[in-house]
Amino acid sequence: MTYCLAIATDSGLVFVSDSRTNAGVDMVSTYSKMYGFGIPGQKQFTVLTSGNLATSQSVISQIKRDIKKSKKHNILTMEHMTEVAEYLGDISTAEQEKTDTSVNAQSYFLLGGQILDHKPAIYMVYPQGNYISTSSDTTYLQIGESKYGKPILDRILTPEVSLETAAMCALVSMDSTIRSNLSVGPPIELSIYPRNSLHPGKYYRFEEDSEYLRQLKKSWDQSLKDSFKKLPPVAWSATWDKETVEIDSNESST
Amino acid sequence: MTYCLAIATDSGLVFVSDSRTNAGVDMVSTYSKMYGFGIPGQKQFTVLTSGNLATSQSVISQIKRDIKKSKKHNILTMEHMTEVAEYLGDISTAEQEKTDTSVNAQSYFLLGGQILDHKPAIYMVYPQGNYISTSSDTTYLQIGESKYGKPILDRILTPEVSLETAAMCALVSMDSTIRSNLSVGPPIELSIYPRNSLHPGKYYRFEEDSEYLRQLKKSWDQSLKDSFKKLPPVAWSATWDKETVEIDSNESST
Repeated sequence: MTYCLAIATDSGLVFVSDSRTNAGVDMVSTYSKMYGFGIPGQKQFTVLTSGNLATSQSVISQIKRDIKKSKKHNILTMEHMTEVAEYLGDISTAEQEKTDTSVNAQSYFLLGGQILDHKPAIYMVYPQGNYISTSSDTTYLQIGESKYGKPILDRILTPEVSLETAAMCALVSMDSTIRSNLSVGPPIELSIYPRNSLHPGKYYRFEEDSEYLRQLKKSWDQSLKDSFKKLPPVAWSATWDKETVEIDSNESST
Repeated sequence: MTYCLAIATDSGLVFVSDSRTNAGVDMVSTYSKMYGFGIPGQKQFTVLTSGNLATSQSVISQIKRDIKKSKKHNILTMEHMTEVAEYLGDISTAEQEKTDTSVNAQSYFLLGGQILDHKPAIYMVYPQGNYISTSSDTTYLQIGESKYGKPILDRILTPEVSLETAAMCALVSMDSTIRSNLSVGPPIELSIYPRNSLHPGKYYRFEEDSEYLRQLKKSWDQSLKDSFKKLPPVAWSATWDKETVEIDSNESST
């Protein structure tokens, strides 16, 4: 499994991905799922992948080949983000068609970036080749094992949060997922792209034994514990909606 | 869908359940999924249900009928929690067998309680009739839509936490799930059973427009936001494992 997340706020983009791939519990490997493409000063793109690794790798190879061959229609010549999303979808469906249908060859992609004179944006590209973007209500997109890490995003992310808060939130979301699902694991890659920079964003990689990730987990857990303690118990019980002493007293008194 | 949660700590038991049932988005109803049985001073049981509503209701009715008929073998005559879990499993599998196999008639149950001279305990009863309990590492059991609400439990719950913290944690876990999954919803029922009380625990019910739930959500969200702010940014960036300025500079410089 995989967990990848892309966040778009007013101040830029944040990407985070794990690096674990598995085909059964005894076939676990480490592969980066984060790829960057761009022309400094003109355009920058980040692509995150989940699903069938063979398909994902073929798609990334194809993007690179198209660049190398200096094909007219490659990711670096495109003028709109939607054009890039469509291009990704086209390569992806073409790759899947090459594969025996008895295998699930589906891959999902998160695409984010910015083109000069346009706003930064993120897209999720489905295996069918179509794609969706974010809205002002939904500032993030996820692929892979998305449920465990979703609540923290829903509670914290708004278009106004700083890039740093968004990055911390993304790492906490990843940490929650790693703890709950064995098939998601380090190294963790994080990339932070400030709006209008049009240069590759800051890139961080956290290894399995990362002292930073250990501290993040520890200080976050402590904050949550403190949060529970700080909620005043008297005020809380005074606002209970309704209180009864017995559950289903009919049955209980039998 | 459903979300039910049972927690066993050193100081007692906590149960929480939602009340939404649905068969498609236009067939949504409200049913309690929390049932209590017991003899004050001798034994107390709480049962939470998920899955097929017809099966769940039949099982609960059967338990009540067995008590009313004063059958020798009923939930109130049993001397061990495992006996009760087995009894629940037996009724459940028998009920499922009555149903046409083309329908998914499976139900899951959480059973918790205490019998005089025994420790309190919780069990999850599978549709197949077998069951599992908790361990010192895993102090809770969930049924239904369990993923969204799991991370907060993993971060907070240990056998040592107070009943009040466990109850708050259960409500936050429920709140996370309700926000992320439309098919889980209020009223929310909460029951808190202090160890060795052998009387029905405290019971609370929160309606859809609950001022308390609104405050819980608000103060929790605020705590989380504050937690992010409190993490000192300078110290954090100083402990990044590794920092590079570009992603895949090979491609980026193409």
